[in-house]
Amino acid sequence: MASTHGIFLATAPDQRGLVARLAGFFYNLGLNIVDASNHTESLAEPGPRFFMRLVVDLEGLEAPPASAGLGGSSSRRSLETAFQGLCDELGAVGSVRYSDVVAKVAILVTKDPSCLYDLVLRQRAGELPCDIPLVVSNHATLESVADGFRIPFFCLPVTAATKEDQEQRVLALLRQHHVDLVVLARYMQILSEGFLKAAPPVINIHHGFLPAFQGAKPYHQAHARGVKLIGATAHYATSDLDQGPILEQDVARVTHEAGPDELVRLGRDIERVVLARAVRAHLQGRVFVSGRRTIVL
Amino acid sequence: MASTHGIFLATAPDQRGLVARLAGFFYNLGLNIVDASNHTESLAEPGPRFFMRLVVDLEGLEAPPASAGLGGSSSRRSLETAFQGLCDELGAVGSVRYSDVVAKVAILVTKDPSCLYDLVLRQRAGELPCDIPLVVSNHATLESVADGFRIPFFCLPVTAATKEDQEQRVLALLRQHHVDLVVLARYMQILSEGFLKAAPPVINIHHGFLPAFQGAKPYHQAHARGVKLIGATAHYATSDLDQGPILEQDVARVTHEAGPDELVRLGRDIERVVLARAVRAHLQGRVFVSGRRTIVL
Amino acid sequence: MASTHGIFLATAPDQRGLVARLAGFFYNLGLNIVDASNHTESLAEPGPRFFMRLVVDLEGLEAPPASAGLGGSSSRRSLETAFQGLCDELGAVGSVRYSDVVAKVAILVTKDPSCLYDLVLRQRAGELPCDIPLVVSNHATLESVADGFRIPFFCLPVTAATKEDQEQRVLALLRQHHVDLVVLARYMQILSEGFLKAAPPVINIHHGFLPAFQGAKPYHQAHARGVKLIGATAHYATSDLDQGPILEQDVARVTHEAGPDELVRLGRDIERVVLARAVRAHLQGRVFVSGRRTIVL
Amino acid sequence: MASTHGIFLATAPDQRGLVARLAGFFYNLGLNIVDASNHTESLAEPGPRFFMRLVVDLEGLEAPPASAGLGGSSSRRSLETAFQGLCDELGAVGSVRYSDVVAKVAILVTKDPSCLYDLVLRQRAGELPCDIPLVVSNHATLESVADGFRIPFFCLPVTAATKEDQEQRVLALLRQHHVDLVVLARYMQILSEGFLKAAPPVINIHHGFLPAFQGAKPYHQAHARGVKLIGATAHYATSDLDQGPILEQDVARVTHEAGPDELVRLGRDIERVVLARAVRAHLQGRVFVSGRRTIVL
Repeated sequence: MASTHGIFLATAPDQRGLVARLAGFFYNLGLNIVDASNHTESLAEPGPRFFMRLVVDLEGLEAPPASAGLGGSSSRRSLETAFQGLCDELGAVGSVRYSDVVAKVAILVTKDPSCLYDLVLRQRAGELPCDIPLVVSNHATLESVADGFRIPFFCLPVTAATKEDQEQRVLALLRQHHVDLVVLARYMQILSEGFLKAAPPVINIHHGFLPAFQGAKPYHQAHARGVKLIGATAHYATSDLDQGPILEQDVARVTHEAGPDELVRLGRDIERVVLARAVRAHLQGRVFVSGRRTIVL
Repeated sequence: MASTHGIFLATAPDQRGLVARLAGFFYNLGLNIVDASNHTESLAEPGPRFFMRLVVDLEGLEAPPASAGLGGSSSRRSLETAFQGLCDELGAVGSVRYSDVVAKVAILVTKDPSCLYDLVLRQRAGELPCDIPLVVSNHATLESVADGFRIPFFCLPVTAATKEDQEQRVLALLRQHHVDLVVLARYMQILSEGFLKAAPPVINIHHGFLPAFQGAKPYHQAHARGVKLIGATAHYATSDLDQGPILEQDVARVTHEAGPDELVRLGRDIERVVLARAVRAHLQGRVFVSGRRTIVL
Repeated sequence: MASTHGIFLATAPDQRGLVARLAGFFYNLGLNIVDASNHTESLAEPGPRFFMRLVVDLEGLEAPPASAGLGGSSSRRSLETAFQGLCDELGAVGSVRYSDVVAKVAILVTKDPSCLYDLVLRQRAGELPCDIPLVVSNHATLESVADGFRIPFFCLPVTAATKEDQEQRVLALLRQHHVDLVVLARYMQILSEGFLKAAPPVINIHHGFLPAFQGAKPYHQAHARGVKLIGATAHYATSDLDQGPILEQDVARVTHEAGPDELVRLGRDIERVVLARAVRAHLQGRVFVSGRRTIVL
Repeated sequence: MASTHGIFLATAPDQRGLVARLAGFFYNLGLNIVDASNHTESLAEPGPRFFMRLVVDLEGLEAPPASAGLGGSSSRRSLETAFQGLCDELGAVGSVRYSDVVAKVAILVTKDPSCLYDLVLRQRAGELPCDIPLVVSNHATLESVADGFRIPFFCLPVTAATKEDQEQRVLALLRQHHVDLVVLARYMQILSEGFLKAAPPVINIHHGFLPAFQGAKPYHQAHARGVKLIGATAHYATSDLDQGPILEQDVARVTHEAGPDELVRLGRDIERVVLARAVRAHLQGRVFVSGRRTIVL
């Protein structure tokens, strides 16, 4: 069986010795680095910034399984404390996750089943390292899909008048299920700034090639503009609509023959692949946010 | 040797029998249709509109070569008159060009040699059916490139104060060389509405994936926005900057590793291919404009 | 509601007047051509060959719905007879299908659910104009998937000893359900020449970029060879394994980082899209076979 | 001005601490690591193998410019000696190159100017960090192209009878010009095993999507097989024709409309981009060869 890994992320103002000191930290502890990658963002504000991801084999660490106690074993805690100490020295922001602590993902949908099926099937196929403890929707349409996969489905309709209340109920569900990531799989509601502040990270799929065609009906906009490629964009949702850091994009070639409906059809294939790639990268702990940009290591 | 072809374009409000009547016209004249394609633009304004392109072998037509007389022979004229009669019946707009009448293309450049080399080399390789009687620039930088290919080079510097005058001089050159198409191969000036009205069709290459990143420094805009694909767009220049009908687009995948300079470098490869495809489609008589969209048959 | 369409295909040795005569046939009957496309295959054997697809609005035809009688109404029969007469004159092979006669598709699978889900979901979303009356498998693994969509599932295990018998039983099922098209959605058995002769057309998805990596374990072959792109190929199954006419292909970029398992994962996304496009083109009556090539109009 | 960099490559059997020890080596010397990347090839023979590339700022090194003495300064030599010592400890194969020691590239051509122009223009634009001291051809066709760029051109015709002798003369030219890399830019001759052993690394562009369509006339093979994508492959030339490690590949979508000549035309655009990317990666010291695979860091 594959051994347990720790995924250590660190980001700091660029300075001499970062690769050596971060890699050396694990080497000196007798731990094997399975994968290491890094990037320096030269144009970051206020100055060049360094990002590193280290995947470390924890076999050398005496560790009871994660299930034994909240937050992992005492030796994991020692490791985390030591890593935090190094980060403090480097002026770095660090974080840790473990391959045996599976993230919990809530999927929010409205009526379109395409992305929902896709995410669940990938999770079942082992492509997305996560649990999906619930699906939330403002319509009942997709209840049978969730049922078919034995995933609890919560229908919370929303109107302009009930929006604040509905969002509070969604937030309560997220807390109750210890959700680590929210995926908007064609959830056709704009989330309030308050919701986004209170919620775990939220990944949205926009069915347009951002920053072109922001807002509503992007395929109709694309048809009217006569573009020769259509696209989709997965991004972190922020309070600025369709302005959050982009995780992944892709496009498909189209010709004058494709009307808006055909663009919608072709777009569905791009949307679900783009969304799945973005969710996978996030779940694998590959993504840093730097201003409006993402670094995907 | 390949025989001479006539390329007949027609567009009309959609109606029964258009394919049959247009194809039948040539069949009844004993002429062979080498290639026929058509499209109905359902969402055109004010109603569905039909577009057809027919390539006809003129072997059956008793015709002296085009060089014998301006505008072709009397039998070409008869054919054109008859075709115009059919178009009138159908409420169609028609046009004709001949494979032995080679279009004359003026290339406008500033300092970047990439697209200029590309267009000239493709023309020499037989990919672009045209002559290139002149290169015009507002800088002397690329004179040696034009010289190397024995293409007359005209340097017409421009300032805000001299812009109107300079444009008049460019127009005079275009007229003098009987230019049918102007290609802006990284010509870093905005052409005035007056120029565009007086000039033959103008194809521009925008180094961004329109409609995203209109205006200046699109690669820097793209970097700041953190997109995962960059692109280029060839479009007909209109008085609305970067808003003309799109002929062709393409993209390349980029990661966080690429800074603005790397985006510029990667973009150059897309720009020149996109521009060349657009120019080729135009020269082959494949392009109709319908509102803000192009139909490329 | 959309009116009923007839899709008329014709292929003939290239000759003067084919577009005009085929289009004129419908025009003279007062029928509107909704879509017309054609292609001349210059290098076909024994000589250039013409292919045309005409989509005709049948509104003008006095026709009871297809359900009224097997094979359609008498006026459809008259139309078909007349069309056949024209084909005879032209030395053409013709065929007709109607938009209200829905094709029946059998899906053959083994254990991998990815393509099965994809095809069924697309059919449900209206992307694939067909019924799916049955799923056949040599394993029971995917029975619950078929059940979830209320599609009858037939499990017919096969061994070297029972292969001939099993194929006969599959053929019997295909006949019994009036199947028009068989889709091998990762069916991990090689079908015998006898089966392929007796069965309706069979579309297979090969998880390699044919003609590279024919045969077994193409992703492992691709990894060993160190290719930088992997692909998938949908083709008509013929008695020459992996040699049938190609309907559709696509690729994805990979790097040295992807091991064989990762190639399998990435490949799944290509496979299902490529297979779906191929099935859709076939069902829309867009595909001609010309030797080892397909013409997709 | 950009400071001078050393590019250090190391590959070793996988073992604990490689990242830490390699990065730590430079850190302990007070040198700044500008870029570090690594990969473990799990399936390498005889066991997992580690590859690392480190780009190090040499500002901290007291160094006279490379031009001062063959092979660089004494302090570079000390650094190299120390690096070699570390490699010995790790059982690693190491190598070093410097950003101020510009590689010399010989381009071999026959008659097709496309890749030659492309490489030279990229070199002039600063995309390819190299000098091009000579172009060698077995035909005189492209002499004027080389002349136009003031690059010495050597025409060495070859026949079956003179092949061995001609190759010796090419090798003499390569030695005489201190060539570090040979690029076959559509050189239509098969190089002998003897030549390849004696020559510096050789990169070839194959106008097919290897391993499909090896050997002659790949576009004609592709047309006959009816593929829906065509491609090109850049690989290191080895004595097994078209079997060398692949550096880069790309494809373009084609339809049934494209005959062999059109495939050739479309292929040219892929070939030159693929070749340029491969040459650039090699010149930037990003490429390791591992069996039949390349690792491009």
